[in-house]
Amino acid sequence: MTAQFAQPGARGFSLPGEPVPFFLEAGEGERAHLFDSLVTVLLSKDETQGQFGVFTLAAPKGEAIPTHAHADVHEIFFVLGGRARVWIQDAAGERLERLLKPGDFGYVPAGLPHTFRVEADDTRILGVCTGGFERFFAAAGTRTDSFALPDPPYAPSPERLAAAGREFRNEFRFDLRLDG
Amino acid sequence: MTAQFAQPGARGFSLPGEPVPFFLEAGEGERAHLFDSLVTVLLSKDETQGQFGVFTLAAPKGEAIPTHAHADVHEIFFVLGGRARVWIQDAAGERLERLLKPGDFGYVPAGLPHTFRVEADDTRILGVCTGGFERFFAAAGTRTDSFALPDPPYAPSPERLAAAGREFRNEFRFDLRLDG
Repeated sequence: MTAQFAQPGARGFSLPGEPVPFFLEAGEGERAHLFDSLVTVLLSKDETQGQFGVFTLAAPKGEAIPTHAHADVHEIFFVLGGRARVWIQDAAGERLERLLKPGDFGYVPAGLPHTFRVEADDTRILGVCTGGFERFFAAAGTRTDSFALPDPPYAPSPERLAAAGREFRNEFRFDLRLDG
Repeated sequence: MTAQFAQPGARGFSLPGEPVPFFLEAGEGERAHLFDSLVTVLLSKDETQGQFGVFTLAAPKGEAIPTHAHADVHEIFFVLGGRARVWIQDAAGERLERLLKPGDFGYVPAGLPHTFRVEADDTRILGVCTGGFERFFAAAGTRTDSFALPDPPYAPSPERLAAAGREFRNEFRFDLRLDG
């Protein structure tokens, strides 16, 4: 089963798309470049009956991503390596902030504005989200067969970013600055 | 919010129990000992509206756990450190086997018999499951405030293991040997 799709570097690598068992070697998955990050989807809603998706994000030290909220999507951050600072605005309007190191965990329930900033090179984060959102990154960015970080970074057009936001109900909050 | 519950080593540590944002330092979470493993729940169905749970499992080199299947629960293995060999019997009855190293990933969709064997000391695995199953380990094992592996191992009585299996619809397949 795995040999049909799990070929590292194969062009157009796709996950199985149905609830079947499979394995991936480190780095394998559906890869996309978005800004300065490499996002790799390991599991999608199509394998979990819509329940959850799993992805990794690799990035260098950089700027905070745009503050955003997704009304229907719960999301976790689990730091595999490096450092990432996460900001979340809770339901009472209070701003929570934490610098996450390897093994540290952050939870962002649906609907809350949040952002993060990678604060060390070679940072790697594992994410889990409500099924479906894992493919936002490829929709906003660009699919790649590369295992490397984007060089130069991939900056989507405002139209592309907005379209992906609409498709995945990801609301950018350019009016709200949580970091700094 | 986090200070109310996120106290490392605090007796009776509990997750928030509702969809609120929170952070955990490495090692924090609802910890339990089961056989030779330390299982730490980072996120439960109560924070995700039943969608998914997240846990880590730390274990020394050892024997395969009992082969089992959970009819309603999808589950992933993501290896954080060490080595674990996973066996899965697919829907056609074919046995899949893979030695997972750090960064490697395995997916077990609902209903398929599977087992794993930790093959290196200091192995750590991150698991994600359909919401609810993350508390099977505490039900079968015993809650602990320790951050260490169980010493001696905690071997539940057959009655306790069977009761946890019934509660979490985890079917042990002592009739089926997938490993070796």
